[in-house]
Amino acid sequence: MQPYDARTHHMPAFGAARAAFADGTDDPRRFLERCLETIEARESEVHAFVVTRIDDARRAADAATARYRAGIPLSVVDGMPVGLKDTIETADMPTQMGSPFFEGHESHRDAACVDALRRGGAVIVGKTVATEFAYGRQQGTHNPFDPSRTPGTSSSGSAAAVAAGMLPAALGTQLKSSILRPSSYCGTYGYKPSWGALSMAGVHPYSPSGDHLGSHAGTLDDAWTLARFISQEAGPEPGQYGLEGPETLPGAVRPKRLLRLYTPGWDRSIAPSKAAFESVLDTLRGGGVEIVEPASIPTLLAVEDDTFGAEACIDRIADFEMRWLFRGYRERGADLGDRVSASLKRGDAMTRDDYHAALRWKQLFRDHIAAAGSLVDGFVMPSSCGPASVGLDNFGDPVFGTPATCSGAPSVGLPLMTVNGLPQGVTLMGFHGADADLMAHAAWVVGHIMAS
Amino acid sequence: MQPYDARTHHMPAFGAARAAFADGTDDPRRFLERCLETIEARESEVHAFVVTRIDDARRAADAATARYRAGIPLSVVDGMPVGLKDTIETADMPTQMGSPFFEGHESHRDAACVDALRRGGAVIVGKTVATEFAYGRQQGTHNPFDPSRTPGTSSSGSAAAVAAGMLPAALGTQLKSSILRPSSYCGTYGYKPSWGALSMAGVHPYSPSGDHLGSHAGTLDDAWTLARFISQEAGPEPGQYGLEGPETLPGAVRPKRLLRLYTPGWDRSIAPSKAAFESVLDTLRGGGVEIVEPASIPTLLAVEDDTFGAEACIDRIADFEMRWLFRGYRERGADLGDRVSASLKRGDAMTRDDYHAALRWKQLFRDHIAAAGSLVDGFVMPSSCGPASVGLDNFGDPVFGTPATCSGAPSVGLPLMTVNGLPQGVTLMGFHGADADLMAHAAWVVGHIMAS
Repeated sequence: MQPYDARTHHMPAFGAARAAFADGTDDPRRFLERCLETIEARESEVHAFVVTRIDDARRAADAATARYRAGIPLSVVDGMPVGLKDTIETADMPTQMGSPFFEGHESHRDAACVDALRRGGAVIVGKTVATEFAYGRQQGTHNPFDPSRTPGTSSSGSAAAVAAGMLPAALGTQLKSSILRPSSYCGTYGYKPSWGALSMAGVHPYSPSGDHLGSHAGTLDDAWTLARFISQEAGPEPGQYGLEGPETLPGAVRPKRLLRLYTPGWDRSIAPSKAAFESVLDTLRGGGVEIVEPASIPTLLAVEDDTFGAEACIDRIADFEMRWLFRGYRERGADLGDRVSASLKRGDAMTRDDYHAALRWKQLFRDHIAAAGSLVDGFVMPSSCGPASVGLDNFGDPVFGTPATCSGAPSVGLPLMTVNGLPQGVTLMGFHGADADLMAHAAWVVGHIMAS
Repeated sequence: MQPYDARTHHMPAFGAARAAFADGTDDPRRFLERCLETIEARESEVHAFVVTRIDDARRAADAATARYRAGIPLSVVDGMPVGLKDTIETADMPTQMGSPFFEGHESHRDAACVDALRRGGAVIVGKTVATEFAYGRQQGTHNPFDPSRTPGTSSSGSAAAVAAGMLPAALGTQLKSSILRPSSYCGTYGYKPSWGALSMAGVHPYSPSGDHLGSHAGTLDDAWTLARFISQEAGPEPGQYGLEGPETLPGAVRPKRLLRLYTPGWDRSIAPSKAAFESVLDTLRGGGVEIVEPASIPTLLAVEDDTFGAEACIDRIADFEMRWLFRGYRERGADLGDRVSASLKRGDAMTRDDYHAALRWKQLFRDHIAAAGSLVDGFVMPSSCGPASVGLDNFGDPVFGTPATCSGAPSVGLPLMTVNGLPQGVTLMGFHGADADLMAHAAWVVGHIMAS
């Protein structure tokens, strides 16, 4: 196997093919067939899918092809081959949550995001592997660049499928780092929108007040386009606001000042990862971006300090919010993995005052991030402590994903580093509700780094 | 049938019996048997229940009796006979939502509130009649004081069962007026807590960002005790805060100033209802409560003005939030009633920008109410435009319930008026999160009016 190189690794790009669909030099069916060839070639090794619906996908791609030929595509995702994390309900495929308790489970309905995708003409290729309830036991997906290594969890199959070139995009979810970490380990563009911007209706919860639906894609454009479309058509979470901004990737805008976040993860990072990230920062500085150190201003140091409490806060809230559902599974005899059982045990021991305290801490963190908005344009950090580890049970550390999840701030993992011949991502984090600004900054960062 | 008289009508009082349980002069089994006798006597006429589980209830009451005898009751609701609106999931009974599509539907799990009640030793007697999805077609419950009249919707069975003396308390839900209106028509204490304070997990939604779980009870104490227990044990909605305050009814506190709200409902009210309400206000003034007119101060007039937009705002938000679920039912061939179908049609035509606009309006209403908090201690209005109408399909006007639902402010309906020989309620509305203060004021108001 070739060592990975972030500068040369190719993944499918759907948005870039739209012009060819319009002029007939390409079409959604041929685009799909290229994906299917890759699935055929790589799936036995990667194991990204729980189930596929190839015939249905071909029919959907043919219908999209006919619409493009007639000049009437349904939407920006018309014809886009998409994979769905197996915690997302589908009317035509089982939804098994990575849990033996849900083996063969049919909910007979599409999640709101799936319903929206179908209405927009997207081509649903299959369900991608998720760890148990997006939290517990891994389910045998391998890193596409080294099958001895983890693809990251919990959106394992979605990231691996995109990274291996099987799909241009796939949906994932994140509570701690379940989009950003596999994005880092697999070298995809992983986008976790602002909390609440995409409906979670019909997606198995892990912590309803903190769950995010998001995208893995081979390009930043597809990652944005997919998420923005779902937010528009399926709507936001109840009572929340959806993504604002253009249908496809906003134009590149250079961020003036980015706050560098160390988080507890910097001290846990391996030396070559640190060196690669410092090099990224140097390149950004060379492009005129001021990299701000958190110690420079108390308002910014507050955000850095908060990153040390983010994971514990997320855990407390999730343990409490999930105890009703997990208790029900336990009472009905479910075989629950160690991590889920431990969460339930912690949840059982919590009082509502414990929960309230965690919510208050989270609000302070959000306030600190909002206050930083007058001083910097966003935040930059590695997406993980290193590249993927050896061993599928070696999930890796969620630490760099937790600030954005806990605070609900939008963030995007960018495949900009090559470390020991493997991918590792750089995360940009923005401000809640300002996702289009984050994407504009990310577009500039990707363009600048790739051109350097 | 005797004409109703608010001053003499007797309903079961559970909290008041706890002392007798402790000293052995009464016990939960005997309390339950008195309820069952009333069910036996009245149910064929009232039709409050969809299904009952009498044997299970007796077993649960016996277990509670044993615990009281041993001096170790599980909680303040140990032994309390409770009815559950049939949109609330139960592991041991079907949950049929008042919809033919869910006839015989078994979810095989307890909603979070039911799970909490069972853990606390409550005696689940049965499922009470709800209109279709707590919104559409009525299901044949009659007003206990005149079977030709509606009990109010949508928590019809819960209110009727309590009013008829079949149960000391029952759970209902409210999006527009589904607790307050049947409370008014049936003469129960109907408590709609602050939005978010009680978990809705396992309750069929009508509008997730606005749905409330609440209580009907024969006493203010039981209404508070039941809701507060659920908030404590099941927790609040994800990311929200639960009810704070004592386990049983807070001590009475005289409100200094109450803002009288007219809403569009005053002009629609019948003359004897207006006269009865004016009499209530006079009695409150006589007790030293200043009744503030909304026209007196612009900050207060803003709240009054907002009440004219509350129902439309609730409808817009619900239509958008429910379209995914109702679309799914439609696609699966459900027989949907006219009201549900109309909601779906409106929702299909909405854009996300329409939804955002409704959310923004709602936030302004909330801000206006919060601003009024420095000027008054709460709000007072009738609970309906009159007593129950003749005709089960004549649901009545939700207008007086909508301000509290739209704003998320806590409110409680108090059976303080007798109009044309039928009950009609008075609603006190408080400030979000300050439910215990509202209850303290309500306790004073009830005591003062009943003593006058």
